[in-house]
Amino acid sequence: MTAVGAACASGGDAVTAYVEGLAQCARAVSRVLSRAETAAKNRALLAVADALEQSAATLIGENRKDLDAGAAKGLDRAQLERLGIDAQRVAAMACGLREIAALPDPVGEISGMTYRPSGIQVGRMRVPLGVIGIIYESRPNVTADAAALCLKSGNACILRGGSEAIHSNKAIAACIRQGLEVGGLPADAVQLIKTTDRAAVGALLAADKYVDIIVPRGGRSLIERIMAESRIPVIKHLDGICHVYIDDGADRDKALRVALNAKTQRYGVCNAMETLLIAEGIAPTILPELAALYREKSVELRGCPETCRIAPGCVQASEADWDTEYLAPILAIRVVAGLDEAIEHIHRHGSGHTDAIITEDYSHARRFLREVDSASVMVNASTRFADGFEYGLGAEIGISTDKLHARGPVGLEGLTTQKFIVLGDGQIRT
Amino acid sequence: MTAVGAACASGGDAVTAYVEGLAQCARAVSRVLSRAETAAKNRALLAVADALEQSAATLIGENRKDLDAGAAKGLDRAQLERLGIDAQRVAAMACGLREIAALPDPVGEISGMTYRPSGIQVGRMRVPLGVIGIIYESRPNVTADAAALCLKSGNACILRGGSEAIHSNKAIAACIRQGLEVGGLPADAVQLIKTTDRAAVGALLAADKYVDIIVPRGGRSLIERIMAESRIPVIKHLDGICHVYIDDGADRDKALRVALNAKTQRYGVCNAMETLLIAEGIAPTILPELAALYREKSVELRGCPETCRIAPGCVQASEADWDTEYLAPILAIRVVAGLDEAIEHIHRHGSGHTDAIITEDYSHARRFLREVDSASVMVNASTRFADGFEYGLGAEIGISTDKLHARGPVGLEGLTTQKFIVLGDGQIRT
Repeated sequence: MTAVGAACASGGDAVTAYVEGLAQCARAVSRVLSRAETAAKNRALLAVADALEQSAATLIGENRKDLDAGAAKGLDRAQLERLGIDAQRVAAMACGLREIAALPDPVGEISGMTYRPSGIQVGRMRVPLGVIGIIYESRPNVTADAAALCLKSGNACILRGGSEAIHSNKAIAACIRQGLEVGGLPADAVQLIKTTDRAAVGALLAADKYVDIIVPRGGRSLIERIMAESRIPVIKHLDGICHVYIDDGADRDKALRVALNAKTQRYGVCNAMETLLIAEGIAPTILPELAALYREKSVELRGCPETCRIAPGCVQASEADWDTEYLAPILAIRVVAGLDEAIEHIHRHGSGHTDAIITEDYSHARRFLREVDSASVMVNASTRFADGFEYGLGAEIGISTDKLHARGPVGLEGLTTQKFIVLGDGQIRT
Repeated sequence: MTAVGAACASGGDAVTAYVEGLAQCARAVSRVLSRAETAAKNRALLAVADALEQSAATLIGENRKDLDAGAAKGLDRAQLERLGIDAQRVAAMACGLREIAALPDPVGEISGMTYRPSGIQVGRMRVPLGVIGIIYESRPNVTADAAALCLKSGNACILRGGSEAIHSNKAIAACIRQGLEVGGLPADAVQLIKTTDRAAVGALLAADKYVDIIVPRGGRSLIERIMAESRIPVIKHLDGICHVYIDDGADRDKALRVALNAKTQRYGVCNAMETLLIAEGIAPTILPELAALYREKSVELRGCPETCRIAPGCVQASEADWDTEYLAPILAIRVVAGLDEAIEHIHRHGSGHTDAIITEDYSHARRFLREVDSASVMVNASTRFADGFEYGLGAEIGISTDKLHARGPVGLEGLTTQKFIVLGDGQIRT
């Protein structure tokens, strides 16, 4: 090892030791939190909300430091926008906390208790996962939001926000500690990693002795790095290449309404439609009008040859278009023979996020629901509904494109697990 | 790379290509299987059972080759016992298949459909995971059993059994193919890795593009290797260091009965008690008689100093005893001050598998259920009940000591996941 290498390693060692210390502490605290009463958790959440509002001036002042540093560093407008905190954002954070306090507590719920022939009674009890590591980009509001979801679900958490938001995050974390103390809960239930050293992320991902799950919130590169490095299971959200398929049996109005909404209601979101599939029988009567509606919204259309023939102003799509998450006013359109080809296209090019069929055909709806293997499968509804709030989960820590544990929007329940409980009267196995 | 290294790599490459081919094929077939009708799956399972019975002579003959090779290789009696197939074992395999055919099909179950304020109706549909890799030791009956569980839950599977059972496994796999064809299902729904090259395991664990989950069935060293190497999520079962805690409020008869059963009903199983904890107030009136009962069964007792004082014939336990899964007629015993110390001991030394309290105290029972963080937590019942059949799951592919996805005994449901389904009438997001 060179002298420089040695120096780096020793710096890395200090960061590792620091993060491991946090993780060990979180593990210890998680036991207290797992049995905390609902009332105490809610009291703490409401107290954090109050603390944030009372500290609004401090938060905005600390955020100013981040914004100045960010501007000097050359962050673009969108990045600065996400980084910024004003009075309205503080109010929104406080409001989010109060909403989470109002949600039912998932912990302790007992389900499925049945008597077995042996005489024992068996069922399941919902319990927290334990310690959750959240790794996110420079969006300070995530600090309050993620902490609140972990707290309500009885989990200790370790937060690692983007380095550009470090002053803001520290100020928010101070409010959280204050609220936890008011609620009579351990202040270490929520711990912020206070170093901006990138080695801290690696150290957190290696702390599999203490951390039960990692939830990354951010872009693809962040998530890929975490997947490659983590020794801890990750609830991850990858691409959202969402499809709407307009079936031969579609109602014209529903098709137009949903196809327009799924693409244009918001562009930069994972549940926006990126590819429109349309059955060849109905394409000539739907596509021209739909293309005109998209043009009004300045959406660039990239189509298969048949689409380009029917819809003027559409450019020819390349093979890569079918696999692209645009997150922008661009839409790929393909005419397909029918349901089978649509399902096949989604299987080959989709990302398993959200796919919808527009149809009035009962059997087609039923087959689409069963055969499309995505986290959310919809009939006659906009893909934009794939969202924890819209689904009634009350809150959302993210959307999972994994199949294990949590799939689709992840709410409080996704941060818990179930253990078996057995009640007996001295039963033994024979 | 040396010439030898290059030669090895090229051998490894062929194995990798072979396993990747199986995995790719499994992925394709999994789509057919995921939408297979319950009747077809059951027909296939019953046909496999018939084929096994009709091929009994062949199976026993092929198994003879494995037994002879195993004996020549120096396998011990217990290993040969597990490897052996006789007429009774064939009948047991067939019976197991018929039982799985009789279980309800978990796939397609829709739950929790509710209307949201937007007008959409949201719920969840249970669906197969996709492709399951099963890696197990030289127990040929696992081949039939694991294949049946995967098939019934709509998953394609790739089986990798211990190399000592290769002839037996090939013969069983031929019966499975035959049954699948009778059921009208793709014969590749169940694929056996037919090379005994160890590189095949590594290749399977790296096939994360095609395989959704790995289920290892075997001892700790197998599981640790898989955990270290796998790029695919693993449903794993590690140690079963199970505790029974006899509380001050215990009923004497229940305490004696359960403590005896949990240790002595079977020794080499993961849900056998390995450590007995007993409250100091009740220890003097229970331990002497219990120690006598264990002596009758020739169970070696290793106790804390207080236990050794009360129970004659008990040797002093070392620190390592509290962390040992004996899987043998040995029991560690510790006298504790009460509930808190018992929970603390279980937290520090347990493996999160199964722990029981014997008590008549309502509040203690309630606290134990809530605070002990194990896959199965019991009141007044033997730890030996921690089992898929005893819990009413109908069958069991293993017991998970993980917290994510599946915890405790894993039945058909553990081999499935849930997707969100949304039914609308043209709703859009505003």
